[in-house]
Amino acid sequence: MQDVADLAGVSLATVSFVINAKTSAKVSEATRARVWSAAQELGYRTNRAAKNLVQGASTFIGLVADAIASTPFAGQIIRGAQDAAWQNRHILLVANTEANGEAEQDAITMMLEHQVTGIIYSTWYHREVTPPAALREVPCVLVNCYAADDSLPAVVPDEVQGGRTATQVLLDRGHRRIAFVNSTESAPATTGRLRGYRAALAAAGVAEDPDLVLTVRPEQEGGYEAGLLLLGLPTPPTAVFCYNDRVAMGMYDALHERGMRIPGDIAIVGFDNQEVIAGHLRPPLSTIALPHYELGARGVRMLLGGDGSAPAPGRTIVDCPYIPRHSL
Amino acid sequence: MQDVADLAGVSLATVSFVINAKTSAKVSEATRARVWSAAQELGYRTNRAAKNLVQGASTFIGLVADAIASTPFAGQIIRGAQDAAWQNRHILLVANTEANGEAEQDAITMMLEHQVTGIIYSTWYHREVTPPAALREVPCVLVNCYAADDSLPAVVPDEVQGGRTATQVLLDRGHRRIAFVNSTESAPATTGRLRGYRAALAAAGVAEDPDLVLTVRPEQEGGYEAGLLLLGLPTPPTAVFCYNDRVAMGMYDALHERGMRIPGDIAIVGFDNQEVIAGHLRPPLSTIALPHYELGARGVRMLLGGDGSAPAPGRTIVDCPYIPRHSL
Repeated sequence: MQDVADLAGVSLATVSFVINAKTSAKVSEATRARVWSAAQELGYRTNRAAKNLVQGASTFIGLVADAIASTPFAGQIIRGAQDAAWQNRHILLVANTEANGEAEQDAITMMLEHQVTGIIYSTWYHREVTPPAALREVPCVLVNCYAADDSLPAVVPDEVQGGRTATQVLLDRGHRRIAFVNSTESAPATTGRLRGYRAALAAAGVAEDPDLVLTVRPEQEGGYEAGLLLLGLPTPPTAVFCYNDRVAMGMYDALHERGMRIPGDIAIVGFDNQEVIAGHLRPPLSTIALPHYELGARGVRMLLGGDGSAPAPGRTIVDCPYIPRHSL
Repeated sequence: MQDVADLAGVSLATVSFVINAKTSAKVSEATRARVWSAAQELGYRTNRAAKNLVQGASTFIGLVADAIASTPFAGQIIRGAQDAAWQNRHILLVANTEANGEAEQDAITMMLEHQVTGIIYSTWYHREVTPPAALREVPCVLVNCYAADDSLPAVVPDEVQGGRTATQVLLDRGHRRIAFVNSTESAPATTGRLRGYRAALAAAGVAEDPDLVLTVRPEQEGGYEAGLLLLGLPTPPTAVFCYNDRVAMGMYDALHERGMRIPGDIAIVGFDNQEVIAGHLRPPLSTIALPHYELGARGVRMLLGGDGSAPAPGRTIVDCPYIPRHSL
């Protein structure tokens, strides 16, 4: 800093005022420009480590993720968190722990040692978690997951509304025999989407037919099997709400193999709006989007707060919007 | 640290020896255990910021990525880099810049301020880049990309070998009329895979038929169009090498619509081994894998080196392995 002062021909105090952006200081624009020019020429770089030490706060936000960065599913959580962090002049430090407890603990410890402003703890699919105790040492927001006792702030998708919307768009087209191909896995998505399906049917005065609710592995293969089962019913459905887009992909395969047209013979709606699949099936799949980008962005905004206060415990629920394409 | 010493009943020097893992110190196992127990009880945490300041080095590795963490394509680069970093007791700091030059510059500046051991600069698809000048201030390895003048160390996939292998597995099944549906985009993958296709045909004494080499948008839609075109030829091919798995997905749709069986009527080989698609088409797609995990892991190992020396400039090429499934 002394070198910068010498080159710019100003006092050390002036350099410090300019570099640290103390706006109250009466330093002319010309002097500021001279200081920055000298700093640039000398390759001066503020020593962030020293600043952290003094101020006890960095411009990092930590994102501890189980597998978001490495799976092809929920990458938009990172994009949303990253954008919100950058907008607030924070850099997002992502640690992908593969749900390994030790790696998770180490990552959080190192983030705390590096004095992050806060930590986003996130999972690649919506689920209940037991957050590591260390998370409570720093402002923290759970994204796409929640604590069993809701003792930490969390942002999660509204699975019930998503399931209701998926069923409603089919009801709106006049369908009454609507199947729901659900997942065999225990998850908030499984119970929530089923509740939404039932709520929409009930509101429309349509009695639920147990034959039309199946559970399969939530993959292409499960959707294919479900398609063959549904076509084998005495009265097949005229529309199918698929648990996710991968199941819809398999449903397409089964229907196409049997010479059925989509949506002419059977209408389909998916869930997830999964990249690579949803917009690229034939016909392109109408689906419900998981609001991954919004979950990430909302989580960071809650973490940073408006007034510097810690975010409040409890779940914030984000809508799952309908994405119309050509399958109904 | 003094509190830890008091609680453990040892000297400050002993605590320092134990905490900083100076193995030459003659401290008994029992004493070590007592120190760690006291440290844990007191919530003692080494102040990494202070250590960085003193040592001028942290245990961070920076990963500056254009969009790897947020797209469903090359996430295994992060998984590979992360695993290699953890194995070497470094934490991977991921900054996803969306290829925004300013964000990239800011991310690199902050990483340098935080004194990373080195930086991995990586792209979600294989391409030539103009690396930011700031990268040259720190050990750096390019992953899945390279500098035009090869002045920086880089790890990239072997596109030529991949294209040759894809063609060879079809030749090995007796096919001689093998189409190549290439991409319209200018990229090392486009030129490299074409070179490999030609080399394999030439080595087998098969003359190239220009009618059998098409270029399309490298997506499902392009593959579908190419499928219809190839089926319209006076003598259609008996096998198709598709530029990527998304093209193969569209090729499947076109062939299935026309009642063709895969591989009975036409054999297909893809490229990328893209999750969500390759293993889940009907039939599952035989393809060439992009070695994303290996690229990320290799990049970090090169960065950290065996002997602490900086990695050497120039490209390291990694094989693209064949993944047999059921489409040929």
